[in-house]
Amino acid sequence: MSQHPGVIQSMLSAIRDFGAGSGGSRNIGGSHFQYAELESELAEWHHKEAGLVFPTGYSSNDATLQCLLRVFENCIVFSDEKNHASIINGIRSVPTERQIFRHNDVYHLESLLKQYPFDRPKIIVFESIYSMDGDVGPIAEIIDLAKKYNALTFLDEVHAIGMYGPRGAGIAAALGLADQIDIIQGTMAKAIGVIGGYITGTASMIDVIRSLASGFIFTTSLPPSIVAACLASVRHLKESEEERCLLHAKTEQLRHMLEVRGIQIMPSSTTHVLPVLVGDANKCKTAAAELLHKHRVYLQPINSPTVPVGTERFRINVTPNHTDAHIAHLCESLCTVFDQLNIRPTLAS
Amino acid sequence: MSQHPGVIQSMLSAIRDFGAGSGGSRNIGGSHFQYAELESELAEWHHKEAGLVFPTGYSSNDATLQCLLRVFENCIVFSDEKNHASIINGIRSVPTERQIFRHNDVYHLESLLKQYPFDRPKIIVFESIYSMDGDVGPIAEIIDLAKKYNALTFLDEVHAIGMYGPRGAGIAAALGLADQIDIIQGTMAKAIGVIGGYITGTASMIDVIRSLASGFIFTTSLPPSIVAACLASVRHLKESEEERCLLHAKTEQLRHMLEVRGIQIMPSSTTHVLPVLVGDANKCKTAAAELLHKHRVYLQPINSPTVPVGTERFRINVTPNHTDAHIAHLCESLCTVFDQLNIRPTLAS
Repeated sequence: MSQHPGVIQSMLSAIRDFGAGSGGSRNIGGSHFQYAELESELAEWHHKEAGLVFPTGYSSNDATLQCLLRVFENCIVFSDEKNHASIINGIRSVPTERQIFRHNDVYHLESLLKQYPFDRPKIIVFESIYSMDGDVGPIAEIIDLAKKYNALTFLDEVHAIGMYGPRGAGIAAALGLADQIDIIQGTMAKAIGVIGGYITGTASMIDVIRSLASGFIFTTSLPPSIVAACLASVRHLKESEEERCLLHAKTEQLRHMLEVRGIQIMPSSTTHVLPVLVGDANKCKTAAAELLHKHRVYLQPINSPTVPVGTERFRINVTPNHTDAHIAHLCESLCTVFDQLNIRPTLAS
Repeated sequence: MSQHPGVIQSMLSAIRDFGAGSGGSRNIGGSHFQYAELESELAEWHHKEAGLVFPTGYSSNDATLQCLLRVFENCIVFSDEKNHASIINGIRSVPTERQIFRHNDVYHLESLLKQYPFDRPKIIVFESIYSMDGDVGPIAEIIDLAKKYNALTFLDEVHAIGMYGPRGAGIAAALGLADQIDIIQGTMAKAIGVIGGYITGTASMIDVIRSLASGFIFTTSLPPSIVAACLASVRHLKESEEERCLLHAKTEQLRHMLEVRGIQIMPSSTTHVLPVLVGDANKCKTAAAELLHKHRVYLQPINSPTVPVGTERFRINVTPNHTDAHIAHLCESLCTVFDQLNIRPTLAS
């Protein structure tokens, strides 16, 4: 990225200091041609020079953030309070200065950014879609702040990849902003339907992580069959709009049908993630068991520690393959079980 | 384990404090019957009550150690200086007190242990086979010290599983000591031949990790096909001695043939890991390229940061499927390339 010459320069010196920068392959073993093709396809998807595949999405966030925060000893990280556990773990694993900003609150973020000298390295870490509330991060505003205060941007697009934007490239791409983000991270376990995680960025940035991240260097690479499956899926999702159209049409159908029946979706949701507040761990668990055993509907209860106590919920995602009959049956079953357990979803977000 | 009632008790209270202890399944989703069967097979292999599968060996060490050190706020960890990067990362991610003991040096370990009160929680972390030197940890002596100083033991058996001990259960099992170790960790990416990592221990210990480890709860579970492949492989390795016999016979054959030709194996090696010191990163890399392109032999150079600068090496592992012709060709090729590049392996370990 040309927008942060100073920061990238210090990063490149760090690579040289560590004697790294071999470029292009895994350090010990495990690379093969499908990896190279997959990493190219992912980089191209996100308008980046290079990509790097990890065994899981969790490890791609955790290892990348740990590495960046260790390379930049003096770096301050600014992290949205609702960021995923893998981001939190990457940050808390390094004894670096950190600032947690209120969820999606760019005013709070700016008030924190402006406390630090312009030249001090900074990273802003956030998500495009937050999985528990179904809302979207203020990507354009955060990019503006990053430019104003000389910060790198790290965007987790795991819940958007394959499902939003041109050729499924995610929310940043949908906004025409993918090339303004320094690192875009994704998973291959959700829309891509396999397993694995990745990051994309400039070639030098990717080389830093490839050469220095413990959680990349010292872990096993994915089996070739898994990498080939990811590659086929990414190529398909780039070309086919069918699954995306069906996903969004069916999401709106389900959202409407639930609301007609008085089951409120948490108002935060503007995406395919439809959270329904239950607010009680036991009721949530009992309802899930009833739904599964009596109604043959699989809805997993989301309890603590995944969400705070008191905000237990169901997080409903329709898929392109759900039929009208499936959707009707879900609504019916949910009403029956909620009535039975006296669950009254409120509008609290 | 009955040997540490106080430590296990405080751990059990920790579970209750956190409201965890659901037992038996993944928190959100991703469990299926092959997982349950695989975790039972692994637990039985290592003489433990329960097992827990992670996406990689790296994450099983990293997430488990982070979790234990966060649950026991006052815990001191004692770690062998040559432990794997995944262990180091798990430990350094928590700002807890740590003591690094000299490699395999039980006198040094004891001198560190005796500095602390008997009742203070302690964990000793070590490996059964160290992959870069091919030597074996002093398991019996460390168990004795753990009992004497009231410490938990965490043993990484990734380089031994499937290859040593009765039914391939590892070095601790070979010594009849598996039930004296609190946590035995393994990988399914080496002898088992797939991907994934695991821990085994008491049911309560496994429940702590299942319920509280960020790197377990918030990562994707392995695809069913991968879990099924691991299960089939573990069952095969428990029943078949053929691969183990071939591995050890061919290792001795290769060791002898290399030594006859003047290529010294580092004297630390008493296992199937045959390290040959090169001592120079460029020579190591050039030799690997020559071997691959001119001799069609794939030996990966092991350079920094995997081993310290100045101890660059080849780490040679024969497999049960290598033929006499393969082994002879390797020896011939290695002699040619070492002569050509003036590499004279020394006896330094």
